[in-house]
Amino acid sequence: MRYEELTIEGRNAVMEAFRSGKPIDKLFVLDGCQDGPVRSIIREARKHDTIINYVAKERLDQLSEMGKHQGVIAFAAAYEYAQVEDMMALAKEKGEAPFLFLLDNIEDPHNLGAIIRTANLAGAHGVIIPKRRAAGLTATVAKTSAGALNYTPVAKVTNLGQTIEELKKQGMWFVCADMDGETMYRLDLKGPIGMVIGNEGEGVSRLVKEKCDFTASIPMKGDIDSLNASVAAGVLAYEILRQRSGY
Amino acid sequence: MRYEELTIEGRNAVMEAFRSGKPIDKLFVLDGCQDGPVRSIIREARKHDTIINYVAKERLDQLSEMGKHQGVIAFAAAYEYAQVEDMMALAKEKGEAPFLFLLDNIEDPHNLGAIIRTANLAGAHGVIIPKRRAAGLTATVAKTSAGALNYTPVAKVTNLGQTIEELKKQGMWFVCADMDGETMYRLDLKGPIGMVIGNEGEGVSRLVKEKCDFTASIPMKGDIDSLNASVAAGVLAYEILRQRSGY
Repeated sequence: MRYEELTIEGRNAVMEAFRSGKPIDKLFVLDGCQDGPVRSIIREARKHDTIINYVAKERLDQLSEMGKHQGVIAFAAAYEYAQVEDMMALAKEKGEAPFLFLLDNIEDPHNLGAIIRTANLAGAHGVIIPKRRAAGLTATVAKTSAGALNYTPVAKVTNLGQTIEELKKQGMWFVCADMDGETMYRLDLKGPIGMVIGNEGEGVSRLVKEKCDFTASIPMKGDIDSLNASVAAGVLAYEILRQRSGY
Repeated sequence: MRYEELTIEGRNAVMEAFRSGKPIDKLFVLDGCQDGPVRSIIREARKHDTIINYVAKERLDQLSEMGKHQGVIAFAAAYEYAQVEDMMALAKEKGEAPFLFLLDNIEDPHNLGAIIRTANLAGAHGVIIPKRRAAGLTATVAKTSAGALNYTPVAKVTNLGQTIEELKKQGMWFVCADMDGETMYRLDLKGPIGMVIGNEGEGVSRLVKEKCDFTASIPMKGDIDSLNASVAAGVLAYEILRQRSGY
């Protein structure tokens, strides 16, 4: 399976994975372990913006598939991440104004999968996720995406705000979903657009929000606070699609 | 907790639960068990359209909380289901045209919870689910609804088609989501409306679909088949809300 999450264990194997440029989603290190080889691995992980979890031996034993972790286990996505440029090229190739999803730290893999599925069907050209904190392309994500991962490119970037800046130079506009924004129906969401969806609990982070050109709010007629993140992404994406299709 | 799922075990307790009119979501019976008391329980379960699962002793032992199941375990929703009339009354009280969600066998409790959450925020007056096959109001549903179950009434009906017929007599229109329908943006979705969302795998069943006045399709610009059921419900519900709010 192309998307199966790989467990890499043992010091040499993990170090080798980093050196080969394999995308590592998470690193688990035995808490308190400070010797040379482990410190080298941690250095590599930091260099690659990999999430590092310091855990007890019991947790490592649990995660281990071969029982030979030597204090380090890495989770690698077997899925190859795309580049943002690939998405821009895809839009150009299709003769469409670029339409990208940017996810500001979606943590639940079911949400991430459902959002990639929506991105595919709403005609988006790609999904951009940050390297830190967010869910990566695990087997659960691939499954929940219902095959969309085979078609819709997903890129992982170090800094979402910086990516937004760079894409603005290429003529893109950015809209983020937040409650204090203008009702989405009143905004002009046509043209080359990036839609920013925030974290499940905290919404869009301040630094990312400041980079956005608009804030769009989804009307809330009820008693509770917010929609599920993947539902919110679907609702806003289809409002963008409606406007893009001229309805 | 108001919504915690209750496990009722043992012949007397289960029989008593049925007789008291407690809503039982599921009944587990020891496979091959045919004695009088168990047959009486099965008869009651059929009368109440409860889902019956015949299982091995190991499964019952696993489900049992007290280790005294005597071959029968029932899952009861501690949540009290509302009546469809309550929803119509709620709409009237708010001075709004009724807006109901009808779920034709949503099986995944996470989807059900997310849809109830959407119903609350899209200003719907209630959610109607069928007694058979569908997910009931379990603790998972309550949790995924993010509190919406406290505000949005949920009714369980024996026959969705029949409920649609009865509501039509009260002036309601019904729209179901399906791929072969008219693009949702082109339909007039204003007025007293019931939105029908189908099962995750099979969509809306033929019998229910035939009762609907319109079939609405969500535009699909991508490569895969369909949106996640809760995303689809969100997208269509917000198109209804957009039209209702005059945008």
